[in-house]
Amino acid sequence: MGGVEARVPRGMRDLMPDEMRKRDAVLQRFKRVFRRYGYECIETPALEYWETLSGKYGVEGERLIYRFMDRGGRELGLRYDLTVPLARFIASHPDIPKPFKRYQVQTVWRADKPQRGRYREFCQCDVDIVGSSGVSADAEIIAILYECISSVGVDFSIRTNSRKLIRALVERLGIGVEDELPLARAIDKLERDGLDKVLEEVERLGVKGEALSMLKDFLSTKGTPEEVFASVSSFLGDSSSASSALSELRELFAHLEHYGLDEKKVLLDLSLARGLDYYTGPIYEVSVEGADVGSVGGGGRYDELLGMFVGRRIPATGASIGLDRLMSLLETSSSLDVEEGSADVLICRFSEETEEFEYRLARELRGAGFSVDLYLGDKARKGLRPQLGYAKDKAIPFVLIAGPDEMSKGSVRLKVMRTGEQIEMPASSVVDRLRELTSGG
Amino acid sequence: MGGVEARVPRGMRDLMPDEMRKRDAVLQRFKRVFRRYGYECIETPALEYWETLSGKYGVEGERLIYRFMDRGGRELGLRYDLTVPLARFIASHPDIPKPFKRYQVQTVWRADKPQRGRYREFCQCDVDIVGSSGVSADAEIIAILYECISSVGVDFSIRTNSRKLIRALVERLGIGVEDELPLARAIDKLERDGLDKVLEEVERLGVKGEALSMLKDFLSTKGTPEEVFASVSSFLGDSSSASSALSELRELFAHLEHYGLDEKKVLLDLSLARGLDYYTGPIYEVSVEGADVGSVGGGGRYDELLGMFVGRRIPATGASIGLDRLMSLLETSSSLDVEEGSADVLICRFSEETEEFEYRLARELRGAGFSVDLYLGDKARKGLRPQLGYAKDKAIPFVLIAGPDEMSKGSVRLKVMRTGEQIEMPASSVVDRLRELTSGG
Repeated sequence: MGGVEARVPRGMRDLMPDEMRKRDAVLQRFKRVFRRYGYECIETPALEYWETLSGKYGVEGERLIYRFMDRGGRELGLRYDLTVPLARFIASHPDIPKPFKRYQVQTVWRADKPQRGRYREFCQCDVDIVGSSGVSADAEIIAILYECISSVGVDFSIRTNSRKLIRALVERLGIGVEDELPLARAIDKLERDGLDKVLEEVERLGVKGEALSMLKDFLSTKGTPEEVFASVSSFLGDSSSASSALSELRELFAHLEHYGLDEKKVLLDLSLARGLDYYTGPIYEVSVEGADVGSVGGGGRYDELLGMFVGRRIPATGASIGLDRLMSLLETSSSLDVEEGSADVLICRFSEETEEFEYRLARELRGAGFSVDLYLGDKARKGLRPQLGYAKDKAIPFVLIAGPDEMSKGSVRLKVMRTGEQIEMPASSVVDRLRELTSGG
Repeated sequence: MGGVEARVPRGMRDLMPDEMRKRDAVLQRFKRVFRRYGYECIETPALEYWETLSGKYGVEGERLIYRFMDRGGRELGLRYDLTVPLARFIASHPDIPKPFKRYQVQTVWRADKPQRGRYREFCQCDVDIVGSSGVSADAEIIAILYECISSVGVDFSIRTNSRKLIRALVERLGIGVEDELPLARAIDKLERDGLDKVLEEVERLGVKGEALSMLKDFLSTKGTPEEVFASVSSFLGDSSSASSALSELRELFAHLEHYGLDEKKVLLDLSLARGLDYYTGPIYEVSVEGADVGSVGGGGRYDELLGMFVGRRIPATGASIGLDRLMSLLETSSSLDVEEGSADVLICRFSEETEEFEYRLARELRGAGFSVDLYLGDKARKGLRPQLGYAKDKAIPFVLIAGPDEMSKGSVRLKVMRTGEQIEMPASSVVDRLRELTSGG
């Protein structure tokens, strides 16, 4: 006995009942938002063939995929995100009506270096539109992201930008087209590593002198869309790529106005780049005030990714919310009004004699919709004390005592754990009485 | 473009929106039952260290585990069930109050030969009590199983037996104690392979002549508990193991009586053995009328498994429902009243001119709680026809048409897709009108 080392794998964790109650409350809110916008739920397998996953996340990303052999000798990998599986899904189901608006809440795995708030297994809540090229689709995704994060009561903002602006920047800086991704990746590290480090990295791409100091100004430009547009126009000039990027962003913000969002919370931030390779247009990211766990969500348009699977271009845009990071922020927030106890009522057990009475009360209360824990521990024979301890440990607010004395009188005693008060009442009135007590009355 | 083969891995599948709606409805019902009995939800990682999983499922089972190396060179495996992870969980969290009543709804993986209704990735809904040795705990689990399956409206029965009776049978047949598991596994194949095959296999264990024909009678004994008890007593005699097994089963059925279940649906069936190694007491299994997908759920007491992790004996009992098998039965059943459409209303799009009007209607309807799909396809400029086709494809029951004509009059047209009827009304009354129409009025 006891030979097995009982440890959870490194970088992973168990989710305890109180965490699950909070997660469930948050997911209910998210799903309500997704459904209100007409998004449908799908699920895809945790495993995909290696060919499906490879070549999509860049070298650094790909190294983090849990990869292994099937019994038939085929290579498989565990989901790294929900976007590539969506692209594969669309190719596997070519007849699905488009635009296809879907949400998906599933676990992903990355063999990353574990650190605070960062796990090797975590849950993503993704929302995407497939088959819609207009910025109205990007605006809808941003609005949904906004509503989801609002619904859990944290202080946040959504920063937006466009990969097209970064492409225009590449032209303006006079570096090669092949440097767009390295530039985006360098810029993406701004928040983590600071401006100096980013400029060093950009210098290595061949940007020098005046161009470098212009970039410094560019990356420091934040504010309301109109302020930023003005400064960007003067910086990027009127090249066709710059003006197309700018007019797309202007249109995006025009659409966003229809959603009645707080303008101070949806910003244009030229330093936003996002690390992933596949973005082609608007990109967006949620920043939470005072959070040191990185971004809790974000996304963007990826008009080329689906073509890799489907064989023809299908535009798409979407966002992902990292549930685990968000939950770690909510630990200190009281905005989730989640019940603490494992049940509404504990029914104590006494003896064989009272068994039928206890079971009958349990059935009656369950029938009335209460969550009822009938004590089944082996310590029932030791009387009330261990059972009251159990109720306390499990934060069960009410304990029903229906021992031989009470049974002979047809009564029960209801103990209110918070106050210690015990109320004796006829067994027939316990449902009504509990309803009063639990409705805050 | 189009170089990637877009296939789902063998034995796995995507879950489509209509399937997800049904699964969600079923899971809501299960969770309501679990919570009504005071069970709490946990989740454990998909991956466990190989040492955690190995030696728990028998040779045949262990071969089906997806197994691979961590980057650090440690061996990992994907969850094979939720019972062994629960045992590891209890050891990892020694202070959790007991009895611990938990439910867990997660995916498991088995590299099994794919066949109808059997996948390599499937969802289990488990409910267990840890730290309770009495049969009252087994009775509660059976009652929960009963309520869950009842809640989805299929015709079922729960067959019960005890591993202790099989132990007594081993004694009676005069074979060695080490043959208990082989005997259980042989009997477990009764339903699949038939009585003759089972008797052949038992003969190989050394059971012959009269003993074998007695076993034949024994395995054919089904009926109400009292009928079976009578016939078993006469067969097994009054050895101490036989009478302790029988008294335990009698007590179990006495507890079950308190739950007011339909007696014809909870049977004692001496041919039930269950394949897993770790059962020690009462075992139970759900059989669904006319199902050819095997059992949809079952479980039993496993008083020794937790000791392998915890270092001391902790009794436990619990059941598992196979959601995917159950869902495949429900495909032909109409007991789930699930809405079909992806949204309540589709709002058509016309031109930039009407955009604000359309967005305003969308916000208003969403604010009133409706699920609203604002058409975002690139075909919006082609007029109504593709948008109505989209509503039809997605089974959206109502389409809101708010074009330039309607806008100028401050009205909208609501098309009822089922009848083709179009109702023109003031824009201000659309919320009330939709409420009437969707409440079946």
